[in-house]
Amino acid sequence: MEQNTAKMPIRCKAAVSKVAGEPLEMEEVEVAPPRAHEVRIRILCTSLCHTDVTFWRMKDLPAMYPSILGHEATGVVESVGDGVVEVAVGDTVVPVFSAQCGDCADCLSDRSNICSGLPIRPGGMPRDGTSRFSFASTGEPIHHFISVSSFSEYTVVDVAHLVKIEPGRIPHEMACLLSCCVSTGVGAAWKVAAVEPGSSVAVFGLGAVGLAVTQGCRMRGAKRIIGIDLNPEKIKIGKKLGITDFIDPNGTDGRTVSVVIKEMTGGGADYCFECIGSTPVMAEAFKSSRMGWGKTIVLGVSNDVAPISIPSHDILKGRTVVGSLFGGLKPKTDIPVLAQMYLDKELELEEFVTHEMGFNEINRGLELLTQGKCLRCIIWMDGAREKENVVKVKPKENGRACEAA
Amino acid sequence: MEQNTAKMPIRCKAAVSKVAGEPLEMEEVEVAPPRAHEVRIRILCTSLCHTDVTFWRMKDLPAMYPSILGHEATGVVESVGDGVVEVAVGDTVVPVFSAQCGDCADCLSDRSNICSGLPIRPGGMPRDGTSRFSFASTGEPIHHFISVSSFSEYTVVDVAHLVKIEPGRIPHEMACLLSCCVSTGVGAAWKVAAVEPGSSVAVFGLGAVGLAVTQGCRMRGAKRIIGIDLNPEKIKIGKKLGITDFIDPNGTDGRTVSVVIKEMTGGGADYCFECIGSTPVMAEAFKSSRMGWGKTIVLGVSNDVAPISIPSHDILKGRTVVGSLFGGLKPKTDIPVLAQMYLDKELELEEFVTHEMGFNEINRGLELLTQGKCLRCIIWMDGAREKENVVKVKPKENGRACEAA
Ligand SMILES: NC(=O)c1ccc[n+]([C@@H]2O[C@H](COP(=O)([O-])OP(=O)(O)OC[C@H]3O[C@@H](n4cnc5c(N)ncnc54)[C@H](O)[C@@H]3O)[C@@H](O)[C@H]2O)c1
Ligand SMILES: NC(=O)c1ccc[n+]([C@@H]2O[C@H](COP(=O)([O-])OP(=O)(O)OC[C@H]3O[C@@H](n4cnc5c(N)ncnc54)[C@H](O)[C@@H]3O)[C@@H](O)[C@H]2O)c1
Ligand SMILES: [Zn+2]
Ligand SMILES: [Zn+2]
Ligand SMILES: [Zn+2]
Ligand SMILES: [Zn+2]
Repeated sequence: MEQNTAKMPIRCKAAVSKVAGEPLEMEEVEVAPPRAHEVRIRILCTSLCHTDVTFWRMKDLPAMYPSILGHEATGVVESVGDGVVEVAVGDTVVPVFSAQCGDCADCLSDRSNICSGLPIRPGGMPRDGTSRFSFASTGEPIHHFISVSSFSEYTVVDVAHLVKIEPGRIPHEMACLLSCCVSTGVGAAWKVAAVEPGSSVAVFGLGAVGLAVTQGCRMRGAKRIIGIDLNPEKIKIGKKLGITDFIDPNGTDGRTVSVVIKEMTGGGADYCFECIGSTPVMAEAFKSSRMGWGKTIVLGVSNDVAPISIPSHDILKGRTVVGSLFGGLKPKTDIPVLAQMYLDKELELEEFVTHEMGFNEINRGLELLTQGKCLRCIIWMDGAREKENVVKVKPKENGRACEAA
Repeated sequence: MEQNTAKMPIRCKAAVSKVAGEPLEMEEVEVAPPRAHEVRIRILCTSLCHTDVTFWRMKDLPAMYPSILGHEATGVVESVGDGVVEVAVGDTVVPVFSAQCGDCADCLSDRSNICSGLPIRPGGMPRDGTSRFSFASTGEPIHHFISVSSFSEYTVVDVAHLVKIEPGRIPHEMACLLSCCVSTGVGAAWKVAAVEPGSSVAVFGLGAVGLAVTQGCRMRGAKRIIGIDLNPEKIKIGKKLGITDFIDPNGTDGRTVSVVIKEMTGGGADYCFECIGSTPVMAEAFKSSRMGWGKTIVLGVSNDVAPISIPSHDILKGRTVVGSLFGGLKPKTDIPVLAQMYLDKELELEEFVTHEMGFNEINRGLELLTQGKCLRCIIWMDGAREKENVVKVKPKENGRACEAA
């Protein structure tokens, strides 16, 4: 079936974001065939990440309307454009918002994972800026989102943004987690912070990213991992993944979180991770970091233009602030490593999937995530479960881990 | 002569800061004998650093009045308090504003040089917070300044803040440069940034600290070192120490410095050092840093409370901001290494001394530094040159290197 459609436009269903913050609308869209270096993919499943929520709500640039959001996914190659040799029709692939062209100074360096060959290009394909999506009814083009746009049954992705997954080994929804949240968090602990054994850590925000950071820090031998979240329900799942202490910012008797952390750690944490996307929390994370060697790692994507505020006298005392996309990892190099760690039972992924639902329910999933009531909600494209027949979906109680009663 | 005064107060001359920004006043002061772990030192020479200027002008805390400023110096031990075994009467020593107690978690770690055993204590001695200075006339106490207070013929310094210098090898005024500015700059390039061969570097502010950074970067093999200074005269001395390109912020046809640097380097410098003490310049340095691995190293001590403003989306792209006191070096461990590098002709120090004058002329020296017209101005305590008879003072043309015509 896949072969028949090559070089032809495909009509399929997509969840289109038309107005900031309004429910996504299911539309019939036309997906153009892939151009040179591009790959058209049939999405099997996609998961909802807070970055989708942030762009879904964002009124101004870099958000663009109408657009197709979504960037955590697993898919199957439907057809390939000219010059694509790395993947072939039928391959299972994971798209990643961050490219690895393999040729630029950054891809060739161990110090960077920010491909400068194919920088993120708002709204279009990375090489030429144009769109492969249009409304089937009117032909009006629809914007892409960070080079992935997985809230569609089919999408077109540049081959530099694709990682091939060995078939039949890792379940699709687990591979999907490696396409963004888990890789970002684990990578940040391993590669960006390089957490040392015995360290004290503060993790601000216990969503999938923060909990992946937690797992990464525990794997690196951190002794104390303090989780901070407005939702006290997160403590349960947090403890499973390595949280040793929990702070509810509303339960500190009026003291700031940094004051509490300084008390708990005798001066501040060795590593502070911001996994929320709030610039005031980034500043608070910095304040919570120890002088001498304290590192603040910014992972959250903020919705506002206000900068992070860093008191210059405090940074002088040996403190560091560093930011990272995709946890400092190179997608093609590092995702296979993480997949193998999962297969070797060194990396926990199952706990991250708290909800699973069909594509038609995507707005309910977005709402759960917005309210902090799920970790990862896996959206199965209609029929994908049945067709593939390799994924064994466990029934999930709603909100097993973190939904309030 | 030194022995006679032990355990007795000493009356001597000091330049006292009484009102923010007003000329220092020469006063007869009484210097109490050293208490346990303390050392009384006869200052031979002291140099003027922009940190003195910043605190001299500062109206509010942590500045305190009256006080004795000065922190770059070479001295001779006059007497020691109980428990001091590391130095003895007659030893040549260099005081450093940053302590190395040797026992705390920071001193025991390779990752920190911010001694938590003896944190900087505004106004007094580090262990008990009291003062050893008073006006001879009234007995009114005078505040210390960052544990050194070298604008006095005698001062009392905690032994944790002292580094013993092998006598007769390195000239006093060169040792004096190692007590702050040169160590800070060279250390920042070596230890904090760990500049890599072939790197591009931007140095904001070509005072002694910025030029020491420059020298450090050249030693580490940096290929391109862009100096930025409001005073175009700095280009001459800058080129001697390694500057390859110069930007006068007033000569960029209205473009910002970061735009010019991004153009020159094709995207931003690998390492950006702020050596001025201006939070807007710190933000500009950050903007000038390359995505992927760009590091901004903050060395300047700012006079205002405004924080550094860091756009969160920009730091996410793999950028780092790190601050450092004393270039990340541990005084007792690293100053002897730098002194040896000077003796081995691997480290240039002579170029940093552009002016020398007597203690009575200290206000003129402060003015030169404030106007950016000198690098280091060495203040010789009255008679010190003659008495020591080891230092060969070269006559310096005023402003040889950087005074405008
Ligand atoms: N840097 C990257 O490459 C990268 C990759 C993925 C996600 N992200 C970003 O990471 C952040 C986290 O993503 P996620 O999907 O895990 O989000 P999430 O919504 O699942 O989790 C966020 C958590 O933060 C908590 N929270 C919100 N505000 C808080 C506050 N003020 N104090 C304490 N806790 C608070 C919520 O209760 C929730 O548990 C987002 O900003 C996302 O855009 C970045
Ligand atoms: N972190 C530390 O341990 C440490 C140690 C010593 C000094 N410092 C600080 O380092 C800074 C530099 O000290 P210094 O003694 O070399 O100072 P300096 O006064 O000798 O040099 C500063 C230079 O910056 C230039 N300048 C000023 N404003 C500028 C601007 N807006 N743009 C471009 N150039 C500008 C001046 O012309 C001058 O050449 C000061 O803030 C000082 O307090 C920090
Ligand atoms: Zn994501
Ligand atoms: Zn690349
Ligand atoms: Zn200094
Ligand atoms: Zn110490």
